[in-house]
Amino acid sequence: MALVATERLYTGRIVNLDLDTVGFPDGSTGTLEMLRHPGASAVVPFLDDPRADDPRIILIRQFRHAADGFLWEIPAGRLDPGEEPEACARRELREETGYSAADCRRLVTIHTTPGFTDERIHLFMATGLRAGDHAREADEFVEVHETRWSEALRLVENGEVSDAKTLTALLYTETSLRRRT
Amino acid sequence: MALVATERLYTGRIVNLDLDTVGFPDGSTGTLEMLRHPGASAVVPFLDDPRADDPRIILIRQFRHAADGFLWEIPAGRLDPGEEPEACARRELREETGYSAADCRRLVTIHTTPGFTDERIHLFMATGLRAGDHAREADEFVEVHETRWSEALRLVENGEVSDAKTLTALLYTETSLRRRT
Repeated sequence: MALVATERLYTGRIVNLDLDTVGFPDGSTGTLEMLRHPGASAVVPFLDDPRADDPRIILIRQFRHAADGFLWEIPAGRLDPGEEPEACARRELREETGYSAADCRRLVTIHTTPGFTDERIHLFMATGLRAGDHAREADEFVEVHETRWSEALRLVENGEVSDAKTLTALLYTETSLRRRT
Repeated sequence: MALVATERLYTGRIVNLDLDTVGFPDGSTGTLEMLRHPGASAVVPFLDDPRADDPRIILIRQFRHAADGFLWEIPAGRLDPGEEPEACARRELREETGYSAADCRRLVTIHTTPGFTDERIHLFMATGLRAGDHAREADEFVEVHETRWSEALRLVENGEVSDAKTLTALLYTETSLRRRT
């Protein structure tokens, strides 16, 4: 498919909505609604060695209007203009939890819902945390929870974690990293 | 937070964009852009017993304009008005692969990206597949691939799978189900 034309339908604070006209191989064209997003980073913060028996991580409990309630999430946020994904992950970790990380390792990058948005979230795991100042954004309702890995997996398996980036990051870490220990 | 008012900014084919005014506990109000989505179902189709040594599943390779390329995905699609999530999963499986399923079991329901949409995707695994007619939607560029479980996990660990619903469904199945066998 090739982009033939794009029309900006709405310019928003977080996202912009475009109506893209795309050309198909058979010569026909069609339109697709496409939400343009700057991208984001998210991070699984380990307070203990990830290879320890049952390490502690930090989970966030955040009010989401879209879900009409609180969701379990990992620290995350949008990329600033020109910001590298790892720098964003480290900044969001600092802003949401007050911790700086000695190491920040890329896990995988996800398309959150490619049917209607180009949003990608870069997932990281952070280790070697050091407490610093806590500077939360004022408009977020965020609780910070130290959680054992076994408890985080229990929340996942019980269906209490529904946020896709959080599920992916926790399960990817469990499957790719921890099972090799 | 309480919804104070909502304004429809755009009525689309797939999604609608609203500007919601919400009230905060401190008495102030703010606005949030919110994409309303009808919800969707997605399904991991097992061609062999999931507890077999290295069972085959069906993966879809689908062109996504948002990603400017093909993504590895599981069969999925939007809920029709009034449609139950399991019925939707079974219908999308039939439409995209031609298979009917004897059993369809709920895994977990995800919020794809709750910062700006209420979209939820209900994830299932299907077993006892029986081949039937193949009736793909005409505007989708979809390839159907029989894939060994070990190969699917290799694609995940190599970062070749980026679609969030697919990553979550495969990793959830691996972690919650198969490790118990």
